[in-house]
Amino acid sequence: MPLITGQNFIGGQRSAAGSIIVKSVDASTGETLPYAFHQATLQEVEDAAHAANNAFSSYRCLSASKRAEFLDAIAQELEALDDEFIALVCRETALPVARIQGERARTSGQMRLFANVLRRGDFYGARIDQALPLRKPLPRPDLRQYRTAIGPVAVFGASNFPLAFSTAGGDTASALAAGCPVVFKAHSGHMVTAEQVANAIIRAAERSGMPAGVFNMIYGSGVGEALVKHPLIKGVGFTGSLKGGRALCDMAAARPEPIPVFAEMSSINPVVILPQALSRRADSIAHDLVASVVQGCGQFCTNPGLVVGIRSDAFSAFQNRVAALISDQPAQTMLNAGTLRSYAAGLQNLHAHPGIVHLAGSNQQGHQAQPQLFKADVELLLNGDKVLQEEVFGPTSIFIEVTDQAQLNAAINALHGQLTATLIGEPEDLTQFAELTALLEMKVGRILINGYPTGVEVCDSMVHGGPYPATSDSRGTSVGTLSIDRFLRPVCFQNYPDALLPDALKNANPLNISRLVDGYPSRDSL
Amino acid sequence: MPLITGQNFIGGQRSAAGSIIVKSVDASTGETLPYAFHQATLQEVEDAAHAANNAFSSYRCLSASKRAEFLDAIAQELEALDDEFIALVCRETALPVARIQGERARTSGQMRLFANVLRRGDFYGARIDQALPLRKPLPRPDLRQYRTAIGPVAVFGASNFPLAFSTAGGDTASALAAGCPVVFKAHSGHMVTAEQVANAIIRAAERSGMPAGVFNMIYGSGVGEALVKHPLIKGVGFTGSLKGGRALCDMAAARPEPIPVFAEMSSINPVVILPQALSRRADSIAHDLVASVVQGCGQFCTNPGLVVGIRSDAFSAFQNRVAALISDQPAQTMLNAGTLRSYAAGLQNLHAHPGIVHLAGSNQQGHQAQPQLFKADVELLLNGDKVLQEEVFGPTSIFIEVTDQAQLNAAINALHGQLTATLIGEPEDLTQFAELTALLEMKVGRILINGYPTGVEVCDSMVHGGPYPATSDSRGTSVGTLSIDRFLRPVCFQNYPDALLPDALKNANPLNISRLVDGYPSRDSL
Repeated sequence: MPLITGQNFIGGQRSAAGSIIVKSVDASTGETLPYAFHQATLQEVEDAAHAANNAFSSYRCLSASKRAEFLDAIAQELEALDDEFIALVCRETALPVARIQGERARTSGQMRLFANVLRRGDFYGARIDQALPLRKPLPRPDLRQYRTAIGPVAVFGASNFPLAFSTAGGDTASALAAGCPVVFKAHSGHMVTAEQVANAIIRAAERSGMPAGVFNMIYGSGVGEALVKHPLIKGVGFTGSLKGGRALCDMAAARPEPIPVFAEMSSINPVVILPQALSRRADSIAHDLVASVVQGCGQFCTNPGLVVGIRSDAFSAFQNRVAALISDQPAQTMLNAGTLRSYAAGLQNLHAHPGIVHLAGSNQQGHQAQPQLFKADVELLLNGDKVLQEEVFGPTSIFIEVTDQAQLNAAINALHGQLTATLIGEPEDLTQFAELTALLEMKVGRILINGYPTGVEVCDSMVHGGPYPATSDSRGTSVGTLSIDRFLRPVCFQNYPDALLPDALKNANPLNISRLVDGYPSRDSL
Repeated sequence: MPLITGQNFIGGQRSAAGSIIVKSVDASTGETLPYAFHQATLQEVEDAAHAANNAFSSYRCLSASKRAEFLDAIAQELEALDDEFIALVCRETALPVARIQGERARTSGQMRLFANVLRRGDFYGARIDQALPLRKPLPRPDLRQYRTAIGPVAVFGASNFPLAFSTAGGDTASALAAGCPVVFKAHSGHMVTAEQVANAIIRAAERSGMPAGVFNMIYGSGVGEALVKHPLIKGVGFTGSLKGGRALCDMAAARPEPIPVFAEMSSINPVVILPQALSRRADSIAHDLVASVVQGCGQFCTNPGLVVGIRSDAFSAFQNRVAALISDQPAQTMLNAGTLRSYAAGLQNLHAHPGIVHLAGSNQQGHQAQPQLFKADVELLLNGDKVLQEEVFGPTSIFIEVTDQAQLNAAINALHGQLTATLIGEPEDLTQFAELTALLEMKVGRILINGYPTGVEVCDSMVHGGPYPATSDSRGTSVGTLSIDRFLRPVCFQNYPDALLPDALKNANPLNISRLVDGYPSRDSL
């Protein structure tokens, strides 16, 4: 058994000042695990914010290559975690071993990708406008801009990705890459996992010479509010429910100094099945769609929660086929009892709604989630009924039939913001329904054709974001290298001597990065 | 006399449904001008938001080069406005002719600069990760990202820049460049100016074939709230007071769908005078500093409101010299009676404060602003006294003496967010006080050495922004080409057929823009 102290991580030290003990449970059996976690006291929250802020001035000014070494070291430490670690993650989350192994690789790969971004240097957004001393009527001074870290960032771990969206996940990776120390609020669903990952980060910080306080972690419920309201915290990353995310946004906006919150919250990820695709490959679409709906017990932000098609015999047959496949899917264990309760409550709402019909799925009872399929009247969508705009987190989806192309467009227009939308279509479909791309672009962060939205690649081009309520700020993404932008702000240096400029802006271009010089991209020295 | 109808601009039409009439005044005489402006009704606010939204779907999808033609046409129309126009702007604002001519050139130049940004194409932030069908364990789909407009934007004009930060100012220019239609709330201080500029924009929109509703303008007080709360408005640009800006932020954050507000608000723009500079060129610094303080009657966001130096005989002599120069400065007419009232009230607060001493300036009375100089105890800054954190908008500044270098650093650390900070120093000073750059970087959007903060260049490298309360979001700038980023959000296309991709992402790279392809910048076709 690994050494789990249950103490908070503050400024490179461990701290257990509080008397409230929280426990982690075996997600499959409900058994309480033999570890005691000390909920952070308000003083410890304060200490963690100060520790992050103390680290900030030196960490921000480290060269990007030094920060890259730190991220690479975290990746190595994550990869060095043993099978016992994997087994404990599985125990806390009921997720299978292969998934956790894959998620660990994704998490360390993400750290390495950000290390590459740091070495590449485009995150600086370096811009130089050289002096024009002879310009009339007024000379232009030398002006240079780069981007630097906003300050200490609070990160809230997600329940459904104990590694990739948690302690060393995307928000932490992008904040650390940007030069922002992190105070991480461990998710109560996987604190044993969190402690081991935090230890890995601390080992990496120590061996790469990072300032104490570059990464801090606190346990407990109710401590998040004090963290978000702390004046030294300058930004927030969150993945979770609409209710939780919105509460953080409201707190942050009401601070004496408001701060940005990047909350990834609620998405039903519509999938539009177009007629020619249906006529040619209904069966394979049905299989792939159902696989996406039940994958990981439907516990993905990008789970396809709405399937839209034009009324026809083919669409009815397709719906029946999907219903039959859903009926065949086994029940699965969810991440924790709270998630199961909230799945059951969501299903209850759907069952109780007069405009919604249940198509498939065993009665939801017991300790596992039963896959379900429903059908809703399109009028619910067109009239803005809340039931169709709220994500039911779990292995379920809702069919909607529209009468024709015009109503399909109207239905798309009636959607709230989404992380993703998917078109399943043949080339003729995509021609006939060509306007869908422009309509969907206004609603989502990512549009897919002939794929399924689960599975979010970590790369430069990914957008895991989208208009509210998918996220709190459509200008951000929480997956992919662009996510670093959330934690950077521009600074301009006017008439600055070369020696005092940051390396990214020095005449000699010592970092050999691409810069916008007098309006043209260039790697040249000046 | 130009034809001023006083009607709101909605969807390419004029509208005067309301019965509340608002009037503009001659800023120098207080005389009411002979034009009647119809305050927009709630229905007209609604109509304006709908007009902008109706224009959005087509305007967003126009090629960047078409939008660039529109911006160039606005520049031409602004430049074609005649001397009578200039005279009326001067009448409404009491600003001199040369200033307004310069500001007009700045405003049209800004439009042309954004047209260049559109042609350059870097605003797209195009990124391509090509498919890796053979990757193990899972293939990578083709993923491509660009940035598109967030939606209709509400812009609030500033009192102090009737052209460059108003109807066709930086917020409007950057929003239109991004592809966002604008609903502009005319500032009550210069509605005659606003109407003529709006007419110029509409002429430009018509001759460049823009959709009706790409630009809308409403008059009146109290209409801003309805605008910011309108569900079709997706972002806000504002320049003005902390109180006004914060109120808009709070409204926007409390909406069912919160939206970003980019408010440029309050800054006291500290200037630090270092010892060697003082010993070598105190007199020229005193002249240049006073010129910056009283320029344009001190009505600049970047007006130097705080002068900090280390206690010494030389600094005392310098302070006396500045005081003498301030005493010699003539009174000036402010933008409007409200600005003068608020200047007088700000001075009153300074006079009344026990920790603040009045150094120079005639008694503030009558219809003009008297330049003033004060001195404050550094403890006020160190203890966070509000009086030193709030901008007094007008021709005044406050001296602060610190005991030594350590207290100088402490004073800098005690500052709130600022648009600018300035160091006046010789090379030896900059070596001795080398830590100031890092400290100031955390506080401001722009750091200057041996210059003065008034005068904000419109270029790629400018940052007219900074931490709260200088702005509501330190990640933005309201001057310079980076300001377009505020109104863009990323969208990702997964597995998309080339023909359906936006031009910025097509294989052939028809726009010939630089793109990040598989992690490397490239203009190549794929």
